[in-house]
Amino acid sequence: MARDLEPGLAAIAAAVPTVAASVRAAAVGELEGKTKPRGSLGLLEELAADVAAARGSVRPAPLQAAIVVAAADHGVAAEGVSAYPQEVTAQMVANFASGGAAICVLARSIGAELIVVDAGVSVPVALPQVRSASAGPGTANAAEGPAMSREDAVRCVVAGADLAVELAGRGTTVVALGEMGIANTTVAAALSSALLRRDPAEMCGAGTGVDAAGIERKVAVVRRMLERNEPDPCDAVGCLAAVGGFEIAFLAGVALGAAAHRCIVVLDGFISSTSALAAVGLAPALAGYLVASHVSPEPGHRIVLEALGLRPLLDLGLRLGEGSGAALALPLVAAARDVLVDMATFARAGVTDTGR
Amino acid sequence: MARDLEPGLAAIAAAVPTVAASVRAAAVGELEGKTKPRGSLGLLEELAADVAAARGSVRPAPLQAAIVVAAADHGVAAEGVSAYPQEVTAQMVANFASGGAAICVLARSIGAELIVVDAGVSVPVALPQVRSASAGPGTANAAEGPAMSREDAVRCVVAGADLAVELAGRGTTVVALGEMGIANTTVAAALSSALLRRDPAEMCGAGTGVDAAGIERKVAVVRRMLERNEPDPCDAVGCLAAVGGFEIAFLAGVALGAAAHRCIVVLDGFISSTSALAAVGLAPALAGYLVASHVSPEPGHRIVLEALGLRPLLDLGLRLGEGSGAALALPLVAAARDVLVDMATFARAGVTDTGR
Repeated sequence: MARDLEPGLAAIAAAVPTVAASVRAAAVGELEGKTKPRGSLGLLEELAADVAAARGSVRPAPLQAAIVVAAADHGVAAEGVSAYPQEVTAQMVANFASGGAAICVLARSIGAELIVVDAGVSVPVALPQVRSASAGPGTANAAEGPAMSREDAVRCVVAGADLAVELAGRGTTVVALGEMGIANTTVAAALSSALLRRDPAEMCGAGTGVDAAGIERKVAVVRRMLERNEPDPCDAVGCLAAVGGFEIAFLAGVALGAAAHRCIVVLDGFISSTSALAAVGLAPALAGYLVASHVSPEPGHRIVLEALGLRPLLDLGLRLGEGSGAALALPLVAAARDVLVDMATFARAGVTDTGR
Repeated sequence: MARDLEPGLAAIAAAVPTVAASVRAAAVGELEGKTKPRGSLGLLEELAADVAAARGSVRPAPLQAAIVVAAADHGVAAEGVSAYPQEVTAQMVANFASGGAAICVLARSIGAELIVVDAGVSVPVALPQVRSASAGPGTANAAEGPAMSREDAVRCVVAGADLAVELAGRGTTVVALGEMGIANTTVAAALSSALLRRDPAEMCGAGTGVDAAGIERKVAVVRRMLERNEPDPCDAVGCLAAVGGFEIAFLAGVALGAAAHRCIVVLDGFISSTSALAAVGLAPALAGYLVASHVSPEPGHRIVLEALGLRPLLDLGLRLGEGSGAALALPLVAAARDVLVDMATFARAGVTDTGR
């Protein structure tokens, strides 16, 4: 049985409207009349119909994208599950702030706004380019007990939703999710194993670069995280608190807040997709707003996307995170909208339509 | 034995420099030092190194893209190989000119210049937005004899190369290839079967929408094209003349002229990829400049890309042509260059490098 949500969360979850199935059908009809063989733009046409359904219009306005990168530390890093030391989280946040990280370059290249959030880095980040929403100096080690309190999990989700509402308020219509946090593929493996009742061995991969022995260690640590905390798959907030992370809970909130304002939510890799999976546990209607930008080599990513019913747009072997894959997919989302709205119809262009 | 090239063609082929392997290696080294786990941007890193090798610099200037869409008609359309009547070629050229076609929308969406060329449409196109390079009112029916004379094939290649040189002269550094021509998947199937000595049944698919019986008819027609003309796989110009098309020969020339100026050449679907295959037959060094934007459901496309040694960036089920897939890949090419040039190094950003 699903547990009752806390009032603040319940309001956020209830604010997510079901996507407009009738608008989706109208968009499909609209695309039928465009000057091209039926369905010849493949997945781009599916995406165009999804955009219409999310935005609630067959002629949505030009899209405006923001990338939210949330960073946090994880107590479970102490178990030696990452190829990088924990200090790299804070170093990379500084790199995000100074514009040198991959996601900064990609955001500029693609023309999207970039918002960097300290959701709980272990050392204080005091940089004007970084928004503070810290829930604390990293989570506790979930291999020994809960990663955070239930109250902290709720606070992170609410903070994420607040940011999304702010973005929507100033015209953002597409929100891409990104993250940074040493050890967070381990955390995502634990959280997705819990939510999907899957074996941890299916969900653990090389992350940013551990070897076969490292993957075995991750599996063992994830098993301990689950045994120690016994998260209930029907209680997404409980799962986030037990084995989640501050940035993961924050991004779940971003997704919910964005969908509440009919924004399209573009997922990145395994971690952000697992955030969305938790958020869908809170508000199933969210699923209609999600776009899978890519599928990474991390084995759990494909499983999470399948559980969400999503087909990835890109398969480029990306395994960086930071929102990099989501950023690379943003031009496709914009192009899908443009095809729907701006292409001529057979009738208007005077092109012979054979109905094929 | 390869036949001697005509002098004009020989000069165009000889002008294609080998891509700079040393620059590629330096670019790979440069990417190693960037603030991300080694190789974590996957195929985007390969693409960045390819861009550097083509441009001959590890710090290439920001890329400037043009999409060339060449249109022509094909005598073999009389064999009933397409779901659309031949008149649609001219109608679509008019649609390109008025900005309503998919490629127009995508070019605007992505921010690339669009150049539409009449390479030999059956009815005269007199529109200021369309460049005239017509080799005649469509080819002859290649199921009954050669599609065009050898002189016409040479003229088309030279005209394409001239356009590319003009584009490079005004700053274009990436050229995307697109095409329009009713029946041209049949022509591409014949040309690629000839060049690769493959069975036509492997190279024929649904094109813009024929059914299983239609595919069988295409295979039979392609067999007749090959039996009637007996093209020599070692003579790419001879193959173009025997079973090619005006737009296909033109795009082969665009690719060669672009590579002569170290431009990156982005392929679209089966037809433009087959153009490039013919062009590589004239100048093998061209292969280093080619980027495969996507792989289409047309079975011959994957075979041609494999023969060219290319791995596609996108797999979206696109089967429209017009350069649509190439256009959608242009932001990825730009992003790859930006990652190479603009990302911070571990040293500069003060991020711990574990060498992973």
